Amino acid sequence: MELRKDPITRSWVVVGHGEDATIPIEPCLLCPDSKPSQTLLALPSDDDWKVRVTPHPVPLYRIEGDVGRAAEGIYDKMRGVGAHEIVIETPHHNRPLSRLSDDEIGLVLEAYKRRIADLKLDSRFKYATALKNQGQAAAADWTHAYSEIVATTFVPRRVLYELRAAKTYFEEKERCVFCDIVRQEERAEKRVVDTQGDYVAFCPYASRVPFEVWILSRKHNFQFESPRPEARRKHLAALLGRTLRRLEQVSDAYHLVLHTSPNTSVHSGEITEYWKTIADDYHWHIEIMPILPKGSRSYALKEVYFNAVLPEESAKYLRILESAL
Amino acid sequence: MELRKDPITRSWVVVGHGEDATIPIEPCLLCPDSKPSQTLLALPSDDDWKVRVTPHPVPLYRIEGDVGRAAEGIYDKMRGVGAHEIVIETPHHNRPLSRLSDDEIGLVLEAYKRRIADLKLDSRFKYATALKNQGQAAAADWTHAYSEIVATTFVPRRVLYELRAAKTYFEEKERCVFCDIVRQEERAEKRVVDTQGDYVAFCPYASRVPFEVWILSRKHNFQFESPRPEARRKHLAALLGRTLRRLEQVSDAYHLVLHTSPNTSVHSGEITEYWKTIADDYHWHIEIMPILPKGSRSYALKEVYFNAVLPEESAKYLRILESAL
Repeated sequence: MELRKDPITRSWVVVGHGEDATIPIEPCLLCPDSKPSQTLLALPSDDDWKVRVTPHPVPLYRIEGDVGRAAEGIYDKMRGVGAHEIVIETPHHNRPLSRLSDDEIGLVLEAYKRRIADLKLDSRFKYATALKNQGQAAAADWTHAYSEIVATTFVPRRVLYELRAAKTYFEEKERCVFCDIVRQEERAEKRVVDTQGDYVAFCPYASRVPFEVWILSRKHNFQFESPRPEARRKHLAALLGRTLRRLEQVSDAYHLVLHTSPNTSVHSGEITEYWKTIADDYHWHIEIMPILPKGSRSYALKEVYFNAVLPEESAKYLRILESAL
Repeated sequence: MELRKDPITRSWVVVGHGEDATIPIEPCLLCPDSKPSQTLLALPSDDDWKVRVTPHPVPLYRIEGDVGRAAEGIYDKMRGVGAHEIVIETPHHNRPLSRLSDDEIGLVLEAYKRRIADLKLDSRFKYATALKNQGQAAAADWTHAYSEIVATTFVPRRVLYELRAAKTYFEEKERCVFCDIVRQEERAEKRVVDTQGDYVAFCPYASRVPFEVWILSRKHNFQFESPRPEARRKHLAALLGRTLRRLEQVSDAYHLVLHTSPNTSVHSGEITEYWKTIADDYHWHIEIMPILPKGSRSYALKEVYFNAVLPEESAKYLRILESAL
């Protein structure tokens, strides 16, 4: 397995990892009875955990070894080094994240934070984040509620584009584009789904799929893993829970991705010049992309997205769902 | 329906076109008995056509009207203006493109060329290209062989990235990155699938999916619709046909997209500064992405692609298939 850089689009592709190894489903690897190879984190405690983080049994990347950046003629490659962990969100086999209490969701977010902060101590990793594939249509590996922590030796393409756009915007206006977005959405109201404390959940103006939702803080901060007061952590957990309970009424599958800044403690490598100077202009946020039963034409026309539903309509519908919570 | 620009990634999204209208399947709209609303092109002739181009019965874009670029606070939008046509590749209901003769495939490519050239006369359109979704897994609308012509008021995101990368590469090395890729692939041999005349079919170094194939010419040219001698047209048609016959042995579904330069006859709009100066550094090519039955983890990790099979292995396998043609 290795990482290869597309010389045209400059994105890294993981190639040659072979067919996905079969992940045993029965008995459930994520249930408390199952003994993981290693416990990376247990909250609140090892004996009586509500959230447990373990290495992924079939990792996409290998944790050991050097990055091994090398040229192959005009091409660039590196070894498939990275971290891939699973966050077991609850000991209960049949409870989805959306149905955990606010405190329990808070622990899941705390696990994200601690693992990301820990992985960023490793100077090989340029990026670390959390993501979640919920439901079969999102290619979830288990039915037991879990999310994933991934650390990579490169900054993923979409995050790079976001960083560049945020930097360009800041240079021109001396304001954060994400802060401006939150302000405009709150003023316009029509795409806002829900708020709690400083956090706002809304359907973005150029939503790529129906019912796409972003969760942002009104307070500017480039990295998710920054310490935040207890009250704000509770607000975020409560808003995330409510948003997921709304979304599960329109789809039982979604991708959730935390977008946070690159590893600013690393000071080497080809893209350092970008993110060393621009991480401050970034603004962490959560993106949730529901997968609707009806196939969209999204990927047909080379990455032009087609979204059948106006975000205003999506937000309106999601807001109405509140009464059903 | 309108086009909205994502302020973060700068890509345009078509939103609010409502649920896809149902396309009548029976009787087949693409068969010769069916009378299309309008024939935009018929080859070799209207009376005895082998290839016919008509407006798409359920178009993604509307052909009439002004682009109507406007701001909505910090956001940008425009009307959903564009062209959407179907290229009926054969009068025969059950013959896939791969099973047409080289001459017939040549007519399909000729139809692409003429329609793209014609649409580029319309100064509203910044981009025009051809694409094909083959098979149910690729969300093909009909079983009757067809492809699509699409003209848009913006340059699609991936093409923009390609243009920028080609420009950067050229500025640094004074060589076309695509020309360099073809040279390196031919020298290395291991990812080359097939060649014919000046055309080379190969699995790209950083293939996003197993058995991804690109077809490029060794001769530098930025636009597909440039006139080319009869012999070269035959070579391209023959190579495309053979490549599709190889690919249909690994998958019955694929996306095929022609990547050609933007409309360089248009001299206005936000991105003019890019492509006016850089179209010359571009190099048209065809990208084919087969859809394999086994779901890949491609879109889970925010646009990091995971490709289970090395392109060398894909090319090797595809080359072996030659004997089965």
